[in-house]
Amino acid sequence: MSKYWSKAVQGLDPYIPGEQPKDKVYVKLNTNENPYPPSPKAVQAMQAAADDKLRLYPPPACDELRDTIGAYYGLKKEQVFVGNGSDEVLAFSFMAFFDPGSPILFPDITYSFYPVYAALFHIDYQLVTLNEDFSIPVEGFWQPNGGIIFPNPNAPTGRYLSLAAIETILRKNRDQVVIVDEAYIDFGGESAVKLLRNYDNLLIIQTLSKSRSLAGLRVGFALGSVELIEALDRVKNSINSYTLDRIALAGAVEAFKDEVHFEETRQKIMATRQRVVVSVEKLGFEVVPSTANLIFISHPIVPAERIFRELRERGVLVRYFKKPRIDNFLRVSIGSDEEMDCFLTALRDIVK
Amino acid sequence: MSKYWSKAVQGLDPYIPGEQPKDKVYVKLNTNENPYPPSPKAVQAMQAAADDKLRLYPPPACDELRDTIGAYYGLKKEQVFVGNGSDEVLAFSFMAFFDPGSPILFPDITYSFYPVYAALFHIDYQLVTLNEDFSIPVEGFWQPNGGIIFPNPNAPTGRYLSLAAIETILRKNRDQVVIVDEAYIDFGGESAVKLLRNYDNLLIIQTLSKSRSLAGLRVGFALGSVELIEALDRVKNSINSYTLDRIALAGAVEAFKDEVHFEETRQKIMATRQRVVVSVEKLGFEVVPSTANLIFISHPIVPAERIFRELRERGVLVRYFKKPRIDNFLRVSIGSDEEMDCFLTALRDIVK
Repeated sequence: MSKYWSKAVQGLDPYIPGEQPKDKVYVKLNTNENPYPPSPKAVQAMQAAADDKLRLYPPPACDELRDTIGAYYGLKKEQVFVGNGSDEVLAFSFMAFFDPGSPILFPDITYSFYPVYAALFHIDYQLVTLNEDFSIPVEGFWQPNGGIIFPNPNAPTGRYLSLAAIETILRKNRDQVVIVDEAYIDFGGESAVKLLRNYDNLLIIQTLSKSRSLAGLRVGFALGSVELIEALDRVKNSINSYTLDRIALAGAVEAFKDEVHFEETRQKIMATRQRVVVSVEKLGFEVVPSTANLIFISHPIVPAERIFRELRERGVLVRYFKKPRIDNFLRVSIGSDEEMDCFLTALRDIVK
Repeated sequence: MSKYWSKAVQGLDPYIPGEQPKDKVYVKLNTNENPYPPSPKAVQAMQAAADDKLRLYPPPACDELRDTIGAYYGLKKEQVFVGNGSDEVLAFSFMAFFDPGSPILFPDITYSFYPVYAALFHIDYQLVTLNEDFSIPVEGFWQPNGGIIFPNPNAPTGRYLSLAAIETILRKNRDQVVIVDEAYIDFGGESAVKLLRNYDNLLIIQTLSKSRSLAGLRVGFALGSVELIEALDRVKNSINSYTLDRIALAGAVEAFKDEVHFEETRQKIMATRQRVVVSVEKLGFEVVPSTANLIFISHPIVPAERIFRELRERGVLVRYFKKPRIDNFLRVSIGSDEEMDCFLTALRDIVK
């Protein structure tokens, strides 16, 4: 604390990302990174873009990337916003669509960055209590509100909400913006993108960090009606005219074009997830149904915090949240088959 | 305008960056880009960093880059903050150090992004009127205020303020944060970094876009006391845990280490500036003394707006601001000698 800090900063409780320890090499299943490399075409495009043209500013409107993502989803580029990771897109969305004094709604168990954004931008919020099985009670979103946000599938549970349920939420909230944070949608869920046709209050946010193996490149995007995207552009152009560098733009375009690599990678992860679910269930774990590149698991006897600690001692990192309702669960990213075998071997040893 | 926009966004008047036209190839002297390529070592490092490790998140604390910049300036890494271009660092600084209801001070003629940040974050401001010759009247910053920001050298004039004058401002404002925006400092000015020893209310912001030829990479940084840097970290970690991608981090480190390339490049630009100043003065122009990679010029007879238009027709882009007090001036970036010869030839033709 310092007398020089603004009141806003004095009140902050920043987000803490999953640890990136350097003391030894871990099997890293704690930040939902993709175990497979990005598209070789994307890597090649980035190497080519690392050239003397870096002396020039990037194209501020990012038209080529917006066109490419738009074409993939059957949207025009004016319906696509791109930013420096989906976290930045989320932060801009809080500024663009939510107002102080008009509480927004999000689940009590969800991405822990939402309350951080709310605090930073002075947005009040009400929590919607998830059902016992961590499914989202849609009627929780029918109360008066200043906006809605939830991930689908939800974080850190991986639990998916059907498009029919999402449509009910959109219909009951025609005057508010409903943000569906689809960071994990490519691992088995169906995107709400088809609902954009009928709901101009829907904003979808995605990332290239998970299904396109580019966490290290920082590219996220939003899909929505032209007027919602224009609001995000206005926020961006009031903060930083150029949020994506030339190399990231080049890599992101090629990553989106390489559908074969994308398809192969996500299918492998879904197959591994299926196998791991069977194995941990055999060890007595409860497993929340997941359509994400993670599983959320709890053991009836051995406490999650102990498993977390003992996995770490055995060189396996997973994520543990010491929070109400989920403090006996572990979030385990789906790595390669080899990584998951290490995890399962260690786990067997711990709960045997 | 849309009913879905937040009140904050409805009131925004976003910054407009210099145009990047695609209709033909221009001699581009309108966005203060560096005419020389970045360090070959930086380019090589970026090519090497474009690899399969992009599937992993970048190091969130950016220790290596902070160490490198700190070493260059004789500071520890806790005194260095890095961000996605100096515009992002500026935006975070407005959030970190300024409060609504306590008007900050900046010059009436300055970087046009400052009032945009102020509007976005609801920060009131008072303008300090520059002297007739565009020099900063230090006593203008002695009135009560909630913080101070100005570029040194100033934008868009290029005019430099001595460290002695800056120290007076710091001493008279011990309870407020004074931000010195040194985007152009490497082209002849002396950085205020040596004042950090005695003033924990000083924050210096710099960029790799100009003197290190990396506008396309989006890396900026701040130097200050440990407590000021901690405030910026808190803001960053409440918006986006990873603002710099793996490739940008690798390139920025090498760009800072390659002092030979840096020195050669900036010396060439300063020599060209000197030559161009003599030439435009011969054509009758008034030239504001510049320590930046730009000159700010006005002709006693031919209106600046007409020169701007006619230069554009001749394939030369410069920047014209239709704003009080400077609407008869042109901001001209210092390009290569060849580019400046094109500019001078066109200029001679227009004002002859």
